[in-house]
Amino acid sequence: MYRKESASSSLPTLPRGVLAAVLTPMDEDLAPNHRAFTDHCHRLLAAGCHGLSVFGTTGEGISLSTDERLAALEALVDSGISGDTLLPGTGSCALTDTVRLSRAALEAGAAGVLVLPPFYYKDTGDEGLFRFFAEVVERVGDDRLRLYLYHIPQMTGINLGLPLISRLIDAYPGVIVGTKDSSGDRERITALCREFPGFSVFAGTETLLLDTLRSGGDGCISATVNVTSRLARRVHDAHASGKVDEADALQERLTDLRTSIEAYPVIPALKLLMGELTGDVTWRNLRPPLSGLDESRAKELLSGLPLSELL
Amino acid sequence: MYRKESASSSLPTLPRGVLAAVLTPMDEDLAPNHRAFTDHCHRLLAAGCHGLSVFGTTGEGISLSTDERLAALEALVDSGISGDTLLPGTGSCALTDTVRLSRAALEAGAAGVLVLPPFYYKDTGDEGLFRFFAEVVERVGDDRLRLYLYHIPQMTGINLGLPLISRLIDAYPGVIVGTKDSSGDRERITALCREFPGFSVFAGTETLLLDTLRSGGDGCISATVNVTSRLARRVHDAHASGKVDEADALQERLTDLRTSIEAYPVIPALKLLMGELTGDVTWRNLRPPLSGLDESRAKELLSGLPLSELL
Repeated sequence: MYRKESASSSLPTLPRGVLAAVLTPMDEDLAPNHRAFTDHCHRLLAAGCHGLSVFGTTGEGISLSTDERLAALEALVDSGISGDTLLPGTGSCALTDTVRLSRAALEAGAAGVLVLPPFYYKDTGDEGLFRFFAEVVERVGDDRLRLYLYHIPQMTGINLGLPLISRLIDAYPGVIVGTKDSSGDRERITALCREFPGFSVFAGTETLLLDTLRSGGDGCISATVNVTSRLARRVHDAHASGKVDEADALQERLTDLRTSIEAYPVIPALKLLMGELTGDVTWRNLRPPLSGLDESRAKELLSGLPLSELL
Repeated sequence: MYRKESASSSLPTLPRGVLAAVLTPMDEDLAPNHRAFTDHCHRLLAAGCHGLSVFGTTGEGISLSTDERLAALEALVDSGISGDTLLPGTGSCALTDTVRLSRAALEAGAAGVLVLPPFYYKDTGDEGLFRFFAEVVERVGDDRLRLYLYHIPQMTGINLGLPLISRLIDAYPGVIVGTKDSSGDRERITALCREFPGFSVFAGTETLLLDTLRSGGDGCISATVNVTSRLARRVHDAHASGKVDEADALQERLTDLRTSIEAYPVIPALKLLMGELTGDVTWRNLRPPLSGLDESRAKELLSGLPLSELL
């Protein structure tokens, strides 16, 4: 049985604020390009991101093997990225993979891990989902574990309902510490902040950044922050310094930018933008089942955005 | 670019008829129990199964790591199971895992591989799905590859439509050789048999065994065949020897049996039955997110079935 002992002072601080759901650049063979990946992570932190969630939906994490995720994480840490900024996605349908990835993330000094529910079997009920997360906690068996529940029903087909989250927090206080909520449901995010004080709530889109902060949440973990980090950080900082009107105005600009991008398939659109902004067209590479935008849509996207304001 | 060369005479014969979607027994630590697994596979073949599809939905394949699937496959081959009978599930959301598993299956002598579409990302379109399967074929790069498309939209949320299947068959003739169709849609199965002569169509349930055979399909790959193999084989044999009325009567009994079991969550129900039939209660173990039946439902299932007719 897992026991949570008193927290050591050497534990990483959990990131709060603006987190990028980091893209994974791929080489021509569609393998993660470690150099471009670490460069991009350093650039995001320099642009104002408080943290990095690698290997999530945006990072094509589920399209990578466990070994590929481990190697890319190692490259990141070797490049000098601080574990304090890291919330790697360690979810998998296979319990043993999630345990292995989560242990490795802790060994690498990651502040926490972002864990998907197992998403192959449907309608298994809260009991099966509870058992999955409980087994992850017990098997990782490490006081340093800080686990964030990743709710993204449009991909997983799985609902992480509030009763299940409540049960997990009660069973593993100080371990089940937060959630990334990609439902896009403002009311659910408000409810999470209200029902679970001290639980760290991140919206899955920066469109809800200010709303989430005002509800008592911790910020956002968002795909489009790969290219909007400076502006997103300004929203955060205006809020933090109590500048209500300025925060509102900046959020409006940020929302417009996000809206322009999400009119396209988001991951291909972001990789296209990264290719344009860095001059490195290999950024356009995507692992199947994702595909790039066709040329006319690509042109339309690039011509419709204020590129100089991005990144 | 992949080239299909002329088939060597040493290629395994592709299994046709009654295939079990084999359960994976787990030990108390929820690791695959190789001894119970290989015993079960030998028992299924002795009971009349023409083939074994391991690591599919029923086999909790997606809940196992790639290494766990490889080790269990190796145990199976070491125990003397012939590759001619094997259609292992090698699907994964990660292209590189599917390639690794498929190569290993070929090395182990498997007749073919059963491949899920990548099922995390939704609405990626036929282009992305085509690219995934094409990359698998190209990367495996082995003339022996015989790939079966695994259509199970209720789990994957992915539709493998007939235009996509047609495109894959055209691009890789002799390699994309068949499908397991778990849609439960009789008309779709008939259409597959009609549209793609020579393409090997298996229904995902023995309820449709006789219909599929009569439509020109190859048989079924079914979960419940773990306990109904003798009766399913009799349906097959009656059909093969032209005994129309006998086949109909046997199919009716088989359908009744299947219907009684699928009134319960099928995998937990089958593992419960296996525990009862073998006297080894560790058969009840399931990896989360699957959970066992509660005691009253378990009793109800066991008392409602003609146990002596099973296995």
